[in-house]
Amino acid sequence: MEKKAIIVGAGLVGSLWAVYLAKAGYKVTIYERRPDIRKAEISAGKSINLALSTRGWKALKEVGVDKEIEPIAIPMYGRIMHDMEGHQTFQPYGAEGQAIFSVSRGGLNAKMMDIAEEHGNAVIHYSHRCVDVDLEKGIVHLHNEETGANVQDQADVVFAADGAFSAVRYNGMQKLDRFDYSQDYIDDGYRELLLPANADGSYQMDKNALHIWPRGRFMLIALANEDGSFTCTLFMPFEGENSFEHLTTDAAVDKFFKETFPDFYEMFPGLIDSWHGHPLSSLAIIRCFPWTHGKVALMGDAAHATVPFYGQGMNAGFEDCTVMWELMKKHNENWPVIFKEYEKLRKPDGDAVQDLSKHNYHVMRDYVADPMFLLQKKIEKRFSDLYPDKWMPLYSQVSFSSIRYSDAWNTGMKQDAIMKKVMDRPDIEQVWDSKEVEEAILSMIDA
Amino acid sequence: MEKKAIIVGAGLVGSLWAVYLAKAGYKVTIYERRPDIRKAEISAGKSINLALSTRGWKALKEVGVDKEIEPIAIPMYGRIMHDMEGHQTFQPYGAEGQAIFSVSRGGLNAKMMDIAEEHGNAVIHYSHRCVDVDLEKGIVHLHNEETGANVQDQADVVFAADGAFSAVRYNGMQKLDRFDYSQDYIDDGYRELLLPANADGSYQMDKNALHIWPRGRFMLIALANEDGSFTCTLFMPFEGENSFEHLTTDAAVDKFFKETFPDFYEMFPGLIDSWHGHPLSSLAIIRCFPWTHGKVALMGDAAHATVPFYGQGMNAGFEDCTVMWELMKKHNENWPVIFKEYEKLRKPDGDAVQDLSKHNYHVMRDYVADPMFLLQKKIEKRFSDLYPDKWMPLYSQVSFSSIRYSDAWNTGMKQDAIMKKVMDRPDIEQVWDSKEVEEAILSMIDA
Repeated sequence: MEKKAIIVGAGLVGSLWAVYLAKAGYKVTIYERRPDIRKAEISAGKSINLALSTRGWKALKEVGVDKEIEPIAIPMYGRIMHDMEGHQTFQPYGAEGQAIFSVSRGGLNAKMMDIAEEHGNAVIHYSHRCVDVDLEKGIVHLHNEETGANVQDQADVVFAADGAFSAVRYNGMQKLDRFDYSQDYIDDGYRELLLPANADGSYQMDKNALHIWPRGRFMLIALANEDGSFTCTLFMPFEGENSFEHLTTDAAVDKFFKETFPDFYEMFPGLIDSWHGHPLSSLAIIRCFPWTHGKVALMGDAAHATVPFYGQGMNAGFEDCTVMWELMKKHNENWPVIFKEYEKLRKPDGDAVQDLSKHNYHVMRDYVADPMFLLQKKIEKRFSDLYPDKWMPLYSQVSFSSIRYSDAWNTGMKQDAIMKKVMDRPDIEQVWDSKEVEEAILSMIDA
Repeated sequence: MEKKAIIVGAGLVGSLWAVYLAKAGYKVTIYERRPDIRKAEISAGKSINLALSTRGWKALKEVGVDKEIEPIAIPMYGRIMHDMEGHQTFQPYGAEGQAIFSVSRGGLNAKMMDIAEEHGNAVIHYSHRCVDVDLEKGIVHLHNEETGANVQDQADVVFAADGAFSAVRYNGMQKLDRFDYSQDYIDDGYRELLLPANADGSYQMDKNALHIWPRGRFMLIALANEDGSFTCTLFMPFEGENSFEHLTTDAAVDKFFKETFPDFYEMFPGLIDSWHGHPLSSLAIIRCFPWTHGKVALMGDAAHATVPFYGQGMNAGFEDCTVMWELMKKHNENWPVIFKEYEKLRKPDGDAVQDLSKHNYHVMRDYVADPMFLLQKKIEKRFSDLYPDKWMPLYSQVSFSSIRYSDAWNTGMKQDAIMKKVMDRPDIEQVWDSKEVEEAILSMIDA
């Protein structure tokens, strides 16, 4: 008998998961709320360029589709910090040659849909909004936004990859007794700007780095696009001093950029027009549990939406595919067993990627411009080079390994406690590369 | 022009708040989802007798309705602990004569509805389910569950006192951008039993105490009703050792009570029938913010539902009325200003009553049977008697004062830290009433 699966959401995770299911012999149907983005203008604004890193590549590679993404991915080997005078400082992300990759959400999503259709033999129904779900029976009720028709479909197994505000979770899981759920908005919102290429199509800045203008309580970042432009994002509080509430007139916006990001301002005569082209958006961390019930499982943002500051949202969602796939093989497609183990195994990692994202927000915003923080990173790098099996920097654990997020987070917090003691030495700037500091770290690791 | 207010929910808080609004000259309309409980059998099960304490009485007194509740309230002067051998130990809640009051939820709610109609001139529409709300305009859309009609109503100001799973919050607030929300279920559920009176109508136990059978990870409690019966509640984990999952047969239930609560078992030949009369229910802590938007404010459980272990859910809801009333007077019914200050002022107290409730769960379940805990309480009482302005026990702050919950919680945590150090003395059992211990506490308070 034919095995049938439904995926709700043709986003990044849903499209990739379709390829996995097809590989296991499932006939896959995807229902997507939006129209086909490949035929329409990509909606402006809420995109934030994505940073594809090791976990994401691994999940793509497992089903042989990494080669199709490589051409649209731009390697970024480190951060370039821009100070108030326009001086730039480069800080590598990892070892020589290690990079995270800038990809545009729209471009990647379109490519992933192609892949789902070609490699997953998936049928994607667009403009289908999930309005109800029978978790026990695996029935999904949908409203066709174009025809107005109400349809339903049933499958052996249903996956909700329909994002942070998942309709499957809302209409199904959230009505269950004892379903834990939280949505926490951070105090900061974001607004995008598209910094154009030079007239000759070349980049205005180094494309192989993530650019940051850290300014304490707020920051601007920029990631390169294939066409020479940069997608730039201003993260800032909604209210208070230096907040979006003060940027309500063109004059205020112009003055703010001119005074706060002078080198950026110089590059960007069309700033104000670009400002108007994108809405102010909010950012939330969404946690819930359980992630599965009956024949339905949540994946990606539907299970563990996070804020974008570690660039791990998509990577975590792709890794959900890796984890689910391993469990499918381990339990021979016994879904009730797979689902139980999936949510139990993966929930701490979903929580950890959220903790990591919040942590990195502070790092990017407050610390990357701090000389003592840069010194700390130098000490960590020196020690890690000397004792690679005793110390992998947290950033490398998260971005360049498949170490469980929860393990990375725990190790990272221990490393932070050790480094805090090291940095508390009044003479640290003199002795940072001494044998003594090295021994002190060693003894604390083994303590 | 006539001032008009809508209250959604004719529960305890909604009914009381109607009296306040009437006093301020508002024409009050209440919409209640359920039928009139005064005309129907009170629904079995989900009641947990309530404990009315100082904050609740204060809110009733302000509008002169406390005298109507007194006849149905039974004072409880302390806890009576029942050990495995049936031995009873009494522990007073406060000073001589201080009590919290047992009231049945159904009886109190019926009385409060009478009061809303008589003192508040409120019109209560029953079987009206809120299906949508326009927060900005103060319009409430309702479905009449009896006639099937859809109706709507509009007022100058709308109050949602419709409980933990508030329809106003769900259909209104929860759809707002940047609305923080969480529902956290505790690992434990509860099930009620109604221990009958003796044949002559007299009580089987002392009615003027809250009875507890603390058993570590679970507990049974009993509160007196007016008719000689006791409403008893078993709180226990859903899963694991000693959990509800093992109590699935009559034999298992019988054996469990016989072995775990022998004196209770002896009093209760009809135990099994009573067990079947009530469902297993879950317990959640619900937090959200903001509590107000446009013309609508959340009150009581709709804003800050908690678990019942401090007996403060209703008292906190009644105190919301006190707080809102003070702000109405302060800001001369300028609702936008009142609402902003209400949510800012009261949110930390909503959070604190939840922290207190979780804390007291552990106290009731794990500690009240512990001799060292009882000694600690004796030391605290002795010190508090000597220095009443330096130490008010946490329980008294919460139950016998109107000190803000958030202040009580902070003070209580400081007291706990001090008492932990005191109890860590190896000789504490010998020196507990010494001048030395007294001085040690004094110095820690002033530190």
